[in-house]
Amino acid sequence: MKRTVGIIGAGHVGADTAFSLVTQGLCDQIVLIDHNEAKARSQGLELRDMASLVASRVHIVVNDYAALQQAQVVVMAVGPTTLLREDRMEELLETSATVRRVVPQIMAGGFDGVIINITNPCDVITAVIQRESGLPASRVFGTGTSLDTARMKRVVGEFFGVDPKSVSGYVMGEHGESQFVAWSTVRIGGCLVSAWESDKRPDLAAMKNQVRAGGWEILLGKGWTSFGIGTATARLVDAVLSDARTVFPVSAWDRREAVYIGQPAIVGAEGIVRVLPVTLAPEERLAYAASAGVIGRALSSL
Amino acid sequence: MKRTVGIIGAGHVGADTAFSLVTQGLCDQIVLIDHNEAKARSQGLELRDMASLVASRVHIVVNDYAALQQAQVVVMAVGPTTLLREDRMEELLETSATVRRVVPQIMAGGFDGVIINITNPCDVITAVIQRESGLPASRVFGTGTSLDTARMKRVVGEFFGVDPKSVSGYVMGEHGESQFVAWSTVRIGGCLVSAWESDKRPDLAAMKNQVRAGGWEILLGKGWTSFGIGTATARLVDAVLSDARTVFPVSAWDRREAVYIGQPAIVGAEGIVRVLPVTLAPEERLAYAASAGVIGRALSSL
Amino acid sequence: MKRTVGIIGAGHVGADTAFSLVTQGLCDQIVLIDHNEAKARSQGLELRDMASLVASRVHIVVNDYAALQQAQVVVMAVGPTTLLREDRMEELLETSATVRRVVPQIMAGGFDGVIINITNPCDVITAVIQRESGLPASRVFGTGTSLDTARMKRVVGEFFGVDPKSVSGYVMGEHGESQFVAWSTVRIGGCLVSAWESDKRPDLAAMKNQVRAGGWEILLGKGWTSFGIGTATARLVDAVLSDARTVFPVSAWDRREAVYIGQPAIVGAEGIVRVLPVTLAPEERLAYAASAGVIGRALSSL
Amino acid sequence: MKRTVGIIGAGHVGADTAFSLVTQGLCDQIVLIDHNEAKARSQGLELRDMASLVASRVHIVVNDYAALQQAQVVVMAVGPTTLLREDRMEELLETSATVRRVVPQIMAGGFDGVIINITNPCDVITAVIQRESGLPASRVFGTGTSLDTARMKRVVGEFFGVDPKSVSGYVMGEHGESQFVAWSTVRIGGCLVSAWESDKRPDLAAMKNQVRAGGWEILLGKGWTSFGIGTATARLVDAVLSDARTVFPVSAWDRREAVYIGQPAIVGAEGIVRVLPVTLAPEERLAYAASAGVIGRALSSL
Repeated sequence: MKRTVGIIGAGHVGADTAFSLVTQGLCDQIVLIDHNEAKARSQGLELRDMASLVASRVHIVVNDYAALQQAQVVVMAVGPTTLLREDRMEELLETSATVRRVVPQIMAGGFDGVIINITNPCDVITAVIQRESGLPASRVFGTGTSLDTARMKRVVGEFFGVDPKSVSGYVMGEHGESQFVAWSTVRIGGCLVSAWESDKRPDLAAMKNQVRAGGWEILLGKGWTSFGIGTATARLVDAVLSDARTVFPVSAWDRREAVYIGQPAIVGAEGIVRVLPVTLAPEERLAYAASAGVIGRALSSL
Repeated sequence: MKRTVGIIGAGHVGADTAFSLVTQGLCDQIVLIDHNEAKARSQGLELRDMASLVASRVHIVVNDYAALQQAQVVVMAVGPTTLLREDRMEELLETSATVRRVVPQIMAGGFDGVIINITNPCDVITAVIQRESGLPASRVFGTGTSLDTARMKRVVGEFFGVDPKSVSGYVMGEHGESQFVAWSTVRIGGCLVSAWESDKRPDLAAMKNQVRAGGWEILLGKGWTSFGIGTATARLVDAVLSDARTVFPVSAWDRREAVYIGQPAIVGAEGIVRVLPVTLAPEERLAYAASAGVIGRALSSL
Repeated sequence: MKRTVGIIGAGHVGADTAFSLVTQGLCDQIVLIDHNEAKARSQGLELRDMASLVASRVHIVVNDYAALQQAQVVVMAVGPTTLLREDRMEELLETSATVRRVVPQIMAGGFDGVIINITNPCDVITAVIQRESGLPASRVFGTGTSLDTARMKRVVGEFFGVDPKSVSGYVMGEHGESQFVAWSTVRIGGCLVSAWESDKRPDLAAMKNQVRAGGWEILLGKGWTSFGIGTATARLVDAVLSDARTVFPVSAWDRREAVYIGQPAIVGAEGIVRVLPVTLAPEERLAYAASAGVIGRALSSL
Repeated sequence: MKRTVGIIGAGHVGADTAFSLVTQGLCDQIVLIDHNEAKARSQGLELRDMASLVASRVHIVVNDYAALQQAQVVVMAVGPTTLLREDRMEELLETSATVRRVVPQIMAGGFDGVIINITNPCDVITAVIQRESGLPASRVFGTGTSLDTARMKRVVGEFFGVDPKSVSGYVMGEHGESQFVAWSTVRIGGCLVSAWESDKRPDLAAMKNQVRAGGWEILLGKGWTSFGIGTATARLVDAVLSDARTVFPVSAWDRREAVYIGQPAIVGAEGIVRVLPVTLAPEERLAYAASAGVIGRALSSL
């Protein structure tokens, strides 16, 4: 049985996720779906043109909801009509309507895998998808603060002259304005950033702003962001397909707060295997609760 | 010494070439340059955000011509202001002017490597770059019919139900309207397509049209093409950096015809090591000469 | 469902095949089996120690025939007690007995995938495995002349100063003394080697000997061969798992000659999709028939 | 300039390091050297036979000390005549003599890169190499506890059902009997193992023994260990070649203790960029000092 990944939305994010998967041979088949038939077909042709140029074979199917039955993972990457809104919650009405239309079509063919949501506002939409799909909460999760965390690792790594891969820790909370860097978790090779002796003194507040503003800066420069999120999603897809049980910062269900929210969790074939018992500093706990409140209010507003 | 690749042009093609290189770890440093400062910076941020999500470290430098001195390869990927022109020669006046402005800046810092040109009309612009750079003809080449060849392999492979990687052979001539599929070179696992017994009879003329129209179809659907060409270019960059001496269909200098034109050639650290002595069928030789004429006339028109 | 590969035999070849698969992340689970419990466990530990050092997660199961039920592919890599025999047919009595003991254990648990045989004498043992397993002839094949072909590409590529990947063509016939280089199929970037202009004149007979003696030379130097065959097998496994339908030289069933014998064939999820209709030169057809005779007689001798 | 890696010693460890590098395309050229000419040549042939089966081109040079001049990294992997000694210090007299003979040959041709030592007893031999080479202490380091750390991640990850890649922390001290798991650094996705709620209660002492005994168990089963160390070394080589500045547990120079000893350090093009300021628990500090004493006494005994 071919490892099959469905991608709903053939815009920048969906297409670059597919591009990353094909380049790395991380699945055997992609079912790419978009309501814009010409666009889906065009992206599909691009991906098929890569076949003789990459190491592994990835089959491409376009706009066939029935083919999702074989999928172990579906990536939700439908976008709004414009990206240049200042607050991600503004997108909610538009994208939640799209998602409500699309999810029943995914489920209709008997899909019984894991859904990874990228569509913004990520945390709220993930909850909408879970409800509409009827899948267990653990089988649906969002990319949440995974990209924000990658940005934090870039900012910290570059500041200290260290490979961002050697920076650990998390941006948590909403994938949006109320997110926060959980500095008590941020380490370089295991050493707390705050304890790191360096000529240069890190300005944590400035760093946090760099992280949060990263997406906006990219948006203004090129009109969208896709390389980071596409690559992060490819990692998540790989973890589900191989039942890797790797820890990632994702938007996972928080029972107590009753929201999907960015936090580290173990990702495997069944989706979220377990949320990590992170011990946050007091002010981080407050920031987390506040961010959960923001997400919860948006969810209630629907 | 880090394997350094310069990319001139941070549009879709340049950026997706960089995306492919970073995803695969095919170089250690990319110098990304664009006259649109915000765009270059934005693409650079995207690529830097990938650092913690990929296997190998790739350093990103933005808009620093001086850094090209360390580059072993420069990829020319400046684009025209619009892609939706029907004939690639129309772009010539615009892109040749850009290239004439850019090449001296590349050379000024003491660059002494290989230039791979993607900018269209590819064959003519490759000649312009070679002249402006003063580099030996073998150290400058174009991606030429590499993408068209990948498309031919996709069309043939999908028709016969075979992995496109098992299809060999070339699209030759201009990367444009006068190109042709050199059917006498097209084989599946070594067997001539024409000799292949199959229930389905291949319509070679229809296939040729599918190949040639492939780019146009993608263009209409998504507005540009970049996955195929970005991946093909990443392969070429890898061949130069590792002195692989691999055969690729590229736009290489043809002494007799006095043009750069799409044909198979051996690519290594010094650029084109040797053009392959392909034996074409009589009608293919005519098509090649005709295509060389088209390129030559465009070049003379400058 | 995890992509699961069974490997029977934890000696050099089986272990290095597993090493290659894990390094490249080409499957999600390996079931490694050896009658020497300590050795199987030891190789399993080595492979598990790699988990934090590679990109993708590969689960390792040791000596559990029942786990083969989930396998899409089983690689037969049981070895003889000594490798330093001059004729591969000598190994036949020993390894055929081993294979007859092992195959029923593989099938007992309900295995219903593809078997790839490496155990020598490869062509004869592949036939024995097919009979014992009761699987269709297309679902069992041997690595055959795949390594010999890789050696031919190395010899030809190095002679002409070209990347061996740009050499196409096949060594065919027995994976043993009666094999032959099908020179009529050997091309560099599509150009026949015989037509290649070069200062150095290739001595085809000497090249053939280099190819055939390659394994023996390695055997004398290090005591076994495993990198080439392990890598070739990893490619085959990948082709089956992804239903790639790639052309490889393998030991596939020849109905007319009633033997498994080295020839190009299309490999996909169902094993051999189709044998390629190669047009050989008259002397090559004779060599092929002679080689088939050698294999056939060995098979009858059982 | 090709990324060139010298490997001294074509035994299991040296050869499998090369196998891993070629499989992943992590360098462009390997210079493989062994006093056993036939063995070096044989391993070289095996690696060259892979050329048409892997994605990137890696050139193989055998037994040419002069070619090391181009090398950015040399891996020392000479082995003792027997591996089945119970204490690694016993190997000291034999391997230190070999290393003293080999290092001047490496340096004679003008090598000016980084030396990574695997030869055991690793910490002591690394010091010997540094002295003999005359290179700065930062340009020579050992693989030290990198493999022990990978084993710890395997043991901890498998116990808790988590991807070993999500386990961070270090085994520190001697690559030998006096090593210790620095439990205060061991985390799963950032959470201290000691704080991890689980049905199963981890027995840290038992885990430590599993880590330390891991190599011995493998040795008894297959006669040597090479997959883990070869893969770990490939990662280190990649970090040097790409100036990645990644944190790895390696045997780095400790000025205060005046020994090379296993500890986390930042690895880049210049070797050890910086040793990490790990804050150990009191008992770990004692274990570290005791281990440094063991290494120091062995070094003085020479």
